[in-house]
Amino acid sequence: MSKLSSLAFFLVCAASWARADEGMWTLDNLPVRQMRQRYDFAATPQWLDGVRAASVRFNSGGSGAFVSPNGLVITNHHVALGQLQKMSGEKSDYVKEGFFARRLSEERPCPDLELNVLVSTEDVTGRVLAAIGRSASEAVQNSQRKAEISRIEKESFEKTKLRSDVVELYNGGRYHLYRYRKYTDIRLVMAPEAQAASYGGDHDNFVFPRHDLDMAFLRVYEDGKPLRSPAYFKWSKDGAKEGELVFVAGHPGSTDRLETIKQLEFKRDFFLPARLKELALRRKALAAFAGRGPEAARRARNKIWGIENRFKALSGELEGLGDAGLMAAKKSEEDSLRAAAAAKPDISSACAGAWDRIAAAQAKRAIRFKDLRYRGTADSRLAEMAQTIVRYAAEVEKPNDQRYEEFRDSNLDSLRLELFSPAPIYADLEEAMLALDLKESLDELGPDNPYVKAALGGKEPEVAAHELISGTGLADPERRKKLVAGGRKAVSASSDPLIVWARGLHPLYRELRQWREDELESVEALDGGKIAQARFAVHGLSAYPDATFTLRLSFGKVAGYEEGTSKVPYKTTFYGLYDRAASFDNQPPFDLSPLQAQRRGDVDLSTPLNFVTTNDIIGGNSGSPVFNRGGEYVGLIFDMNIPSLVLRYAYTEDRARAVAVHSSAILEGLRKIYRMYSLADELVAP
Amino acid sequence: MSKLSSLAFFLVCAASWARADEGMWTLDNLPVRQMRQRYDFAATPQWLDGVRAASVRFNSGGSGAFVSPNGLVITNHHVALGQLQKMSGEKSDYVKEGFFARRLSEERPCPDLELNVLVSTEDVTGRVLAAIGRSASEAVQNSQRKAEISRIEKESFEKTKLRSDVVELYNGGRYHLYRYRKYTDIRLVMAPEAQAASYGGDHDNFVFPRHDLDMAFLRVYEDGKPLRSPAYFKWSKDGAKEGELVFVAGHPGSTDRLETIKQLEFKRDFFLPARLKELALRRKALAAFAGRGPEAARRARNKIWGIENRFKALSGELEGLGDAGLMAAKKSEEDSLRAAAAAKPDISSACAGAWDRIAAAQAKRAIRFKDLRYRGTADSRLAEMAQTIVRYAAEVEKPNDQRYEEFRDSNLDSLRLELFSPAPIYADLEEAMLALDLKESLDELGPDNPYVKAALGGKEPEVAAHELISGTGLADPERRKKLVAGGRKAVSASSDPLIVWARGLHPLYRELRQWREDELESVEALDGGKIAQARFAVHGLSAYPDATFTLRLSFGKVAGYEEGTSKVPYKTTFYGLYDRAASFDNQPPFDLSPLQAQRRGDVDLSTPLNFVTTNDIIGGNSGSPVFNRGGEYVGLIFDMNIPSLVLRYAYTEDRARAVAVHSSAILEGLRKIYRMYSLADELVAP
Repeated sequence: MSKLSSLAFFLVCAASWARADEGMWTLDNLPVRQMRQRYDFAATPQWLDGVRAASVRFNSGGSGAFVSPNGLVITNHHVALGQLQKMSGEKSDYVKEGFFARRLSEERPCPDLELNVLVSTEDVTGRVLAAIGRSASEAVQNSQRKAEISRIEKESFEKTKLRSDVVELYNGGRYHLYRYRKYTDIRLVMAPEAQAASYGGDHDNFVFPRHDLDMAFLRVYEDGKPLRSPAYFKWSKDGAKEGELVFVAGHPGSTDRLETIKQLEFKRDFFLPARLKELALRRKALAAFAGRGPEAARRARNKIWGIENRFKALSGELEGLGDAGLMAAKKSEEDSLRAAAAAKPDISSACAGAWDRIAAAQAKRAIRFKDLRYRGTADSRLAEMAQTIVRYAAEVEKPNDQRYEEFRDSNLDSLRLELFSPAPIYADLEEAMLALDLKESLDELGPDNPYVKAALGGKEPEVAAHELISGTGLADPERRKKLVAGGRKAVSASSDPLIVWARGLHPLYRELRQWREDELESVEALDGGKIAQARFAVHGLSAYPDATFTLRLSFGKVAGYEEGTSKVPYKTTFYGLYDRAASFDNQPPFDLSPLQAQRRGDVDLSTPLNFVTTNDIIGGNSGSPVFNRGGEYVGLIFDMNIPSLVLRYAYTEDRARAVAVHSSAILEGLRKIYRMYSLADELVAP
Repeated sequence: MSKLSSLAFFLVCAASWARADEGMWTLDNLPVRQMRQRYDFAATPQWLDGVRAASVRFNSGGSGAFVSPNGLVITNHHVALGQLQKMSGEKSDYVKEGFFARRLSEERPCPDLELNVLVSTEDVTGRVLAAIGRSASEAVQNSQRKAEISRIEKESFEKTKLRSDVVELYNGGRYHLYRYRKYTDIRLVMAPEAQAASYGGDHDNFVFPRHDLDMAFLRVYEDGKPLRSPAYFKWSKDGAKEGELVFVAGHPGSTDRLETIKQLEFKRDFFLPARLKELALRRKALAAFAGRGPEAARRARNKIWGIENRFKALSGELEGLGDAGLMAAKKSEEDSLRAAAAAKPDISSACAGAWDRIAAAQAKRAIRFKDLRYRGTADSRLAEMAQTIVRYAAEVEKPNDQRYEEFRDSNLDSLRLELFSPAPIYADLEEAMLALDLKESLDELGPDNPYVKAALGGKEPEVAAHELISGTGLADPERRKKLVAGGRKAVSASSDPLIVWARGLHPLYRELRQWREDELESVEALDGGKIAQARFAVHGLSAYPDATFTLRLSFGKVAGYEEGTSKVPYKTTFYGLYDRAASFDNQPPFDLSPLQAQRRGDVDLSTPLNFVTTNDIIGGNSGSPVFNRGGEYVGLIFDMNIPSLVLRYAYTEDRARAVAVHSSAILEGLRKIYRMYSLADELVAP
């Protein structure tokens, strides 16, 4: 509680935490009193079960919801964008033109999309902690911890055939086993043109007032037929209304609210500045690539959008950590927790040294920072795949509980879906990206660094990249399958230049990963867990864990805010879209999509378009349903505004807002702009 | 030049002053090279003559323009608002409901409005300076200066019968004689509802994007017939377009760009904080008054709007002076001027001690600050009139050149128009306002202050105000006329309690005014003039004078700007108006006017509504025409945005913008919303 109240600095009009709409809550630990006091609301078990079963996780990152009994899922256009790009080619560009299946037979399979629906959770903290030998080194303790986690996952998977993940909550304070039903036959039903989905482009990203139809519809199939949805959200007749209580269920990816000051300082002083520099480099390189021609521009488009989005988000986060008030509030909260813990002998002995060891780990991290950041080729899919294949061959030979997490039996299916994806790979883009990665390694680590030597083999980055990409056969998914099927022997024997290259890097990767797990991960997980236990001892389980890309519920209200002396309304309307386009004389990026322009006369312009709420969300919540106390679907989360970028570190409801597409806009868009009448009817069917 | 270039801090993208759209230029000293280099434009004498003769000054404060050959004048609704309020009563509220004369016979006379049209200007600097005896004290020099000014004005008036004002330019560096044709038979033609004119109320004031039809039409009559306009602006077919060169001609009231650091510091540390405190008090008192009922609210309305407007403007100015960067730039500019002046013996002897004497005057001003501010009753019209009558009787007995400026022969007509106005006076509001003034004097000066003693006569402020207002007969304009006609004898003999009261205050007023003229005004005018001469000697006449509520021309371009990472378009459209209303569910102050709501279907929503330009303007420019290089009317200035409030001290074109109603919106509003077809036709008649 003091954690939150010490942040009252950020809570305008809120005397205590109990009055704020704060928290990304796990469904087993909702703030019951808070919701009752503030909104006179109590969730029944049936209500919660419905929310859980109707909520969908996009394994690629993102959220969604079932909105019909026939497996129909709604999410954001930008969540489906990766699949849209992979399904598009030089001739049919679904990103630009949209995609409209007017009957089941026209729905098109996504190449490599996995959806998860949470079935159950189970507290396995006792079992994980019991596996840790208290007298061993932290590195050994960490191996024991991870081995036990892999055993729990494997047992569960074998018993239930459900995807089984042990999730580390409260920075190691709790371990919960999450079981998911997994779907991989996902078909695209409808996507508007990108221009309608992300109107105004990067200029309007993170901005409100906003005018986006950032939506896409997919359908889950099972055994070749539309899935009978386990549950779904009923469509609200009126949609979100000002001041009303609304919920968001989704899969927020990651927050840092429980981190120590030293961890935050590391992010502020090392991680974020480096990441922003990298993004700026990539933005420049991709702009140059896109300049080669329209098809090159199409191929680079998604990456450019993604980079612009990250750049803006991380700039906002860095600004948040640069705020002396925020850091002072964080410091004072940490000091008071440490003082409270020190005052109780049993707690203080259990967490003795935890903060100091985490601080020491940050110092070590800073020393190897360049190795950790610049040994990698994340921008080239082929280079990544080659390295994954080499690791795959080595890892699967080990006992399950000694493998890297991503190669545990319970994760292999998901990994293979991605590794064997038939999605197109563009050699020109791959080469440009690999050259960029290699050049960055060279620039940052210098020519004598062992990684740089192994990765470049004495060549210039561009030359090395050209040879590797033009020489490899890995763009063909069958080759990748064959190598994986052939195991270590096939991989060792392969003369594919990219596999040869990845084999050369493998020992360096293993060394660095081992060091990271032993020196950093172990400390953060084990000592983070001790701090969490101290927090529980002092405050009880009254808080929510940091986001972990698992199902969370947040509550809040539909509300505008003040901006300077003026007011920002809680919603926009279609009038606003047409105003913005006309105000810029329909010049890009403020031009209307062709269908928006053509069907303007059909649209009821006063229909709500986007709206804002005080719900506590973060990246990963994209595509989350917004629903009312009756469980009715009233909106589709697609963004946060700029004042909410600080939410990674602390909640505020002053001006920070979640941004959603209004359910009425979705219907109006489907009917009047896209003439997708049967899809609209499916949503509102009684 | 160094003055401006040292402010380059405020000029984004502008390497030197020559590239900025800075300046409120007198028509005799335009920045010819600047306009040619930047916009390839050269003003011909005919073009300038047309601009001058078609520009109108509202003597009550504000600007306007002739827009037809038949005396038709356009200005802002908020410039005409005082007259609208005076013409309204409990039964017909033109402010709320608008006013629509569909034929000449329906046009209604304004009770006390004087319009001025500049006829000529003449440099009389030599004559004024020659009248000043260099060996006398500054107080005596100041009297000589003022006496000469009054002689020049009187001579000119007698010779030409034109209103003749000697204007002090460049803070005393130049004196120009301005001659105006004066019109007082002004009739109201059309005003929209206040809700349409100032949509969004105080929330949206100084804000862009904006959605106001802040316009009003008046017609000048002469000999009972519409005036044949001396000149007028032709209506543009298309209105303002993005990027185009536009001009604003108008009467900016006052800027402080040439003031010394010490004068600015006085404003920052004394004047602005005190004024904001007073405004806050008045806002509260008027809100209480308005709470008495709908008619009280109607009576107090204009004052409330005015106070909200001032409060926001002065807050912005105070913020500007609180900006360390701005003050540092000002300081460095002053230092470099002083250094340059010191390096030239003839200049340095001419301006020796000028900055120090102005600094010393500020120190004196600070000591008597409370007397200067809190001896007054500016909020009660009756109390002001009583004091004016007492002063009038005393002043007109003196030779013309020894009177207070406002009682010089050349000013008496204008003064009488206001003093004898038949506009209604509301006793309840008068009493509340007088009580407020008296209470403030008591609170700030204490009960033993001679002014407080004389003004209250030992009574409580509320009691004194009640007795004075309920006892006076001055609400009747005939009584005021009779007293003025009776001269000192009638005034001395009057037993009207407010006249008796004003007689008691008169000696105190005279003492303070004399002190102010001798100790402050003399120094600022004479030493300000010396600094100006130093500036001319160093930089030539390459700058413009501070604003003086006289005709100025500014140039600039129609341009949006960046706000954070997003873009603000150069214009809004009617779509935006209907969006904002719908976004707030039509709740006040974002509700549509009844006619806007009713005739929505008739309006072409893509019509430009408001737009922004880089022109350099300030309060007093309200109602100014925006016109293109062809002299065509493209817009109506009505506001500045918040980033431009700092323009009182320094120009910036980063985000500061002038805000105007688009000429197309005026036509669309007249025709589609107000069905004022013949008025619209008069504007566009060939």
